[in-house]
Amino acid sequence: MELTRESWTDADAADANLAVLPVGSTEQHGPHAPLGTDVLTAEAVAEAGADRYDDPVVVAPAVPVGIAEEHRRFAGTLWTSESTFRAYVRDVVGSLASHGWDRVIVVNGHGGNIAALKEVTARIVRHDDAYAVPFTWFDEVGEHTSEMGHAGPLETSLLRHTDPESVHEDRLEAAAADGADRWGEWQGRVNLAVDSDEFTDNGVVGDPRESSAELGEELLAKSADALCDLLDAVRDRDPGPRIDG
Amino acid sequence: MELTRESWTDADAADANLAVLPVGSTEQHGPHAPLGTDVLTAEAVAEAGADRYDDPVVVAPAVPVGIAEEHRRFAGTLWTSESTFRAYVRDVVGSLASHGWDRVIVVNGHGGNIAALKEVTARIVRHDDAYAVPFTWFDEVGEHTSEMGHAGPLETSLLRHTDPESVHEDRLEAAAADGADRWGEWQGRVNLAVDSDEFTDNGVVGDPRESSAELGEELLAKSADALCDLLDAVRDRDPGPRIDG
Amino acid sequence: MELTRESWTDADAADANLAVLPVGSTEQHGPHAPLGTDVLTAEAVAEAGADRYDDPVVVAPAVPVGIAEEHRRFAGTLWTSESTFRAYVRDVVGSLASHGWDRVIVVNGHGGNIAALKEVTARIVRHDDAYAVPFTWFDEVGEHTSEMGHAGPLETSLLRHTDPESVHEDRLEAAAADGADRWGEWQGRVNLAVDSDEFTDNGVVGDPRESSAELGEELLAKSADALCDLLDAVRDRDPGPRIDG
Amino acid sequence: MELTRESWTDADAADANLAVLPVGSTEQHGPHAPLGTDVLTAEAVAEAGADRYDDPVVVAPAVPVGIAEEHRRFAGTLWTSESTFRAYVRDVVGSLASHGWDRVIVVNGHGGNIAALKEVTARIVRHDDAYAVPFTWFDEVGEHTSEMGHAGPLETSLLRHTDPESVHEDRLEAAAADGADRWGEWQGRVNLAVDSDEFTDNGVVGDPRESSAELGEELLAKSADALCDLLDAVRDRDPGPRIDG
Amino acid sequence: MELTRESWTDADAADANLAVLPVGSTEQHGPHAPLGTDVLTAEAVAEAGADRYDDPVVVAPAVPVGIAEEHRRFAGTLWTSESTFRAYVRDVVGSLASHGWDRVIVVNGHGGNIAALKEVTARIVRHDDAYAVPFTWFDEVGEHTSEMGHAGPLETSLLRHTDPESVHEDRLEAAAADGADRWGEWQGRVNLAVDSDEFTDNGVVGDPRESSAELGEELLAKSADALCDLLDAVRDRDPGPRIDG
Amino acid sequence: MELTRESWTDADAADANLAVLPVGSTEQHGPHAPLGTDVLTAEAVAEAGADRYDDPVVVAPAVPVGIAEEHRRFAGTLWTSESTFRAYVRDVVGSLASHGWDRVIVVNGHGGNIAALKEVTARIVRHDDAYAVPFTWFDEVGEHTSEMGHAGPLETSLLRHTDPESVHEDRLEAAAADGADRWGEWQGRVNLAVDSDEFTDNGVVGDPRESSAELGEELLAKSADALCDLLDAVRDRDPGPRIDG
Repeated sequence: MELTRESWTDADAADANLAVLPVGSTEQHGPHAPLGTDVLTAEAVAEAGADRYDDPVVVAPAVPVGIAEEHRRFAGTLWTSESTFRAYVRDVVGSLASHGWDRVIVVNGHGGNIAALKEVTARIVRHDDAYAVPFTWFDEVGEHTSEMGHAGPLETSLLRHTDPESVHEDRLEAAAADGADRWGEWQGRVNLAVDSDEFTDNGVVGDPRESSAELGEELLAKSADALCDLLDAVRDRDPGPRIDG
Repeated sequence: MELTRESWTDADAADANLAVLPVGSTEQHGPHAPLGTDVLTAEAVAEAGADRYDDPVVVAPAVPVGIAEEHRRFAGTLWTSESTFRAYVRDVVGSLASHGWDRVIVVNGHGGNIAALKEVTARIVRHDDAYAVPFTWFDEVGEHTSEMGHAGPLETSLLRHTDPESVHEDRLEAAAADGADRWGEWQGRVNLAVDSDEFTDNGVVGDPRESSAELGEELLAKSADALCDLLDAVRDRDPGPRIDG
Repeated sequence: MELTRESWTDADAADANLAVLPVGSTEQHGPHAPLGTDVLTAEAVAEAGADRYDDPVVVAPAVPVGIAEEHRRFAGTLWTSESTFRAYVRDVVGSLASHGWDRVIVVNGHGGNIAALKEVTARIVRHDDAYAVPFTWFDEVGEHTSEMGHAGPLETSLLRHTDPESVHEDRLEAAAADGADRWGEWQGRVNLAVDSDEFTDNGVVGDPRESSAELGEELLAKSADALCDLLDAVRDRDPGPRIDG
Repeated sequence: MELTRESWTDADAADANLAVLPVGSTEQHGPHAPLGTDVLTAEAVAEAGADRYDDPVVVAPAVPVGIAEEHRRFAGTLWTSESTFRAYVRDVVGSLASHGWDRVIVVNGHGGNIAALKEVTARIVRHDDAYAVPFTWFDEVGEHTSEMGHAGPLETSLLRHTDPESVHEDRLEAAAADGADRWGEWQGRVNLAVDSDEFTDNGVVGDPRESSAELGEELLAKSADALCDLLDAVRDRDPGPRIDG
Repeated sequence: MELTRESWTDADAADANLAVLPVGSTEQHGPHAPLGTDVLTAEAVAEAGADRYDDPVVVAPAVPVGIAEEHRRFAGTLWTSESTFRAYVRDVVGSLASHGWDRVIVVNGHGGNIAALKEVTARIVRHDDAYAVPFTWFDEVGEHTSEMGHAGPLETSLLRHTDPESVHEDRLEAAAADGADRWGEWQGRVNLAVDSDEFTDNGVVGDPRESSAELGEELLAKSADALCDLLDAVRDRDPGPRIDG
Repeated sequence: MELTRESWTDADAADANLAVLPVGSTEQHGPHAPLGTDVLTAEAVAEAGADRYDDPVVVAPAVPVGIAEEHRRFAGTLWTSESTFRAYVRDVVGSLASHGWDRVIVVNGHGGNIAALKEVTARIVRHDDAYAVPFTWFDEVGEHTSEMGHAGPLETSLLRHTDPESVHEDRLEAAAADGADRWGEWQGRVNLAVDSDEFTDNGVVGDPRESSAELGEELLAKSADALCDLLDAVRDRDPGPRIDG
């Protein structure tokens, strides 16, 4: 049930207690993939998971701008501060829960959001009247996860399957040529770079030439299945007593 | 130039300094119109204005959740606190401006956002490196503005033109029957009601039966023209010195 | 009952549940009217309303500095940020309510405060143990409201009635000569100017030569009557359940 | 120069760089003295000091509500949180300074404000474009300071001199009878009580029967003289470089 | 019971409801005493008091950085803002209380922390589920208190007793020679200086040559005894009802 | 150079620009290890690294309480909110930098702090006058890292080497018997549990019987060496231009 397109009466009639909130980012994804990659993919996975789930699942509108200051030197990158992002997500989850949809999975498409989502969902579980967990789709695609990069094979593939017109396939060679092999500049386990332009010229990490629509289809299926399994688990979870309850 | 679907390199190549940021709300719009009415209409007007403008205009992704606690008792309504909303908008405008797109019109589709947008854009103009103004489309449609209501003729018409499948035309009678004639409960010029369920049973204010796709087409044209005129004015505006400059 | 001049024991003995909180601004009002115009008028209306009301009404001390950054380039203008202003008003209303005076009308004398007062009183009604509404006196004087301006006929008249020594009648000609006809610089319904010095040389909007003590007397009577009607309505209002109750 | 009653043009014409900001509290002062005691006395001292000073001194409008939660169980006591109070004072001092009146003495009439004023004025001096210090009048009356109490001889005397109608002289006996000898409940140098109703039945500490208009006149003279000496010192003070300058 | 060195099971087994939280500062203490003087002394007094108390007392780890911006121009001085300091202390006291140790004495070794601790402990008592008071050791040593200064006889003596290696006795002469007699630059009761380098060249106030290990032993005994008396009083205190309880 | 024990003059004389800030947590570490494990280990590694580094390194006092609400149901666990923790660390790093020690490594001993430290150090690098990175010692011990757990072999070993009296070796069997094999309760890559008592009875994760003083010695050497390598890298790092510079 895509909330944006439903009337409130239809939303009310659906006997749901599960909701998914797609969360993305608007940020550079190389010369070949769109700035909205992380929103488009998060929405695609959220909708695919909700569609194939047996019980009704409320799909909230996607949060389009996240934590992306690290890409600020590439045109078109938008970002909000971590604290504002957390507050925005917490408010949206809280309003979902106020309607009885108090089991919420935040379906995330951007690595930079992960830590903030972990912090805010734990706060929600401990202090608010809702149970919420983050789910990052590219962490749930089995052995493919290791190939993630940035604007690399996974994201490019998913878009080539779900939204092929958004990808410039004729730029994949150039994207790969000027990209980086690895995220960050490392000393031991510490990344010395805070911004992505310190280690990639065109914003790409990984080789998007390894992408394909077929792989995208597989990634969507895998992540949607994983989301359904998580919906089962969240539906059945006993969150325990609230601190301020 | 719809930022979500462009690559950063294309965004960079566009020689723009104007941007529009659609801002809406996800909230009840009666039994006949979708919860996303305010986002869908803000996006439609922003895109129509940018399309017909001579110079390139960056179209940022829409902010989908705004200030709508007043509708909280109707299922599906989502909201954020005023302060979080302002902070989110300020950050997005700030990141747009960081790329040189520092003349920003916030194209708004929700009455509840107006005061907060006025506050935050004034703060941006005085204190940040950007010039920003809010533009609320239904205030810019001439004599029609007075018929606004909530989920009434104007919003319903615009959607019937731009997104007809999102409107349940077969529910217009019921929507009108259970709606209210006027927003609020008034003593003099003071509204005693803080929530919309205090004065409308189904969330509607005004008569959506007076809507039509033809009227929607006119409203889109009028508001897009007004937006173009404002783009001219904003492009030419001397914002004066910053306080913290 | 003017709280500032009562002992706590007398305040306690008064069997009141209604309170009024005057809120003004210290800001330029042209060469002829005092910087304290908005406080002096708000106090005058609040006291007049409370005096003529049948039941006891607690009159809190006036908040003297409000949201007036827009006048910052005129000497003597004082302001606080919107968020601090809201917090200050919320705290004062909360402490009034703690004594059982939990029906509070914020009597406002400054246009720049209106949006912030609407926001904070709605928050109070939804989340705190009080019912509060804002009342802006110059919006409650019937057809005169349209002549408001800034330091124009209405404010000048009210002071000429309640506090004639505070007005320099010999400067009315000059005040009118260098003032503006209209507030703001407009493109459609959007004000492009964030500060008043962008459109008025001496801070005046409207023609203060049209002021008179007689008109002031009428304005005071009208607004005090409107305030009494609102006191009735607020006394009888069922605020509904609190969100955090 | 009382800002509230001056026009901006007259304020501008005064060649001042010194300002005083009276800060009080609206809180219980026993059965005999008004809730506004701390504002009334702060204003009286500020005006007396400014009047007798040789150079022009801007007198800002008094902040009427301060830090007084400790008296919350006595009717009529109003308070704001410490952080809001500091923000309010900082904003007012900042706007005074923006007009060139950047040497500001906060003339305080309430013990509960002292620590917050010390904190906020130090922050102003280090980080803002102003030099500000707090001045608490009853700390500047020589050997009388030790008799301060609360609603005791000093405050009662000052009001009997400056505003005799505000004091119920016929209640002084009762005020003394039910008052406390000492502020707080002490273990060593630690006050175990956080609220004043824990140690005084009627809110009084000290013996207001020892008050007189004559003593009030002396207190006003002493504190106004001390304020003038401080105005000299503040005028001549080199504040050193700002941290963020 | 020093929490840092206990296992949670042993902490759980101790049948305690009293806790002490040492709070210090890392800031200049002249050429002879260590930057950590205020932490070292607060810890010493807290431990000495807990050791000699009959019932078990939880000793929390010391907060090492406090409010010390006033010493910022001396190398090694560390500080946090007042609001962050208060939040940190409030959180630590709150977590102590969550385990049933809800009678907390904040044992303070730094004058600059006193006002902030008074503010935050009052907030805790009124609004949280704990009773907390601040205790500043050098205020509890009888007639010696008047000799406090900064890096003067008291602090130097205490360290010479508890941690003699931390003091450079060979620098006491120089420390005294370049130090100041009095804290601050005064006009009446107002300190015009916000930073300590405005009135002391080497950071010292008072004469550390008057220090001795013997005096330190006496100071430790006196303050530890005073702390024990306060533990008795806090144990027996009825904090009254919570505001938000 | 352990700042706590140095005089400001000695700190000033050291020609340093590198600093390490140990950051830990006070939280349950099973029945066998102390609540202060994360502070004690962070301090040990920080000091060992600074000691063996060729150039002088300032060692700041350790932050003793971090982000540990997840252990709140085990006695003695202390925590602060994430936002307060970040603010505290930012202030301390800022004051270190003010003295010229503007290359700061935050040496961390607690997994729960990692995300917050990444956020705050990136903010410092982008916005403040310092370059800071986090370093978590147990991530820098090669193949041992995978054995981390909680109160498991690594932490227990390090303490058995650096502070053997703090470990109850006679409780290792019981610690292992009632501990958990794995942190969290997982559905795919999502941890459904927000608090550690949901999956471990005594707080232990991993098998502390596998600890030894010898392993501790190795861990200290490895992590101290890694810290030295990072000091080299941080010393040489060009942080790039500040956003607000």
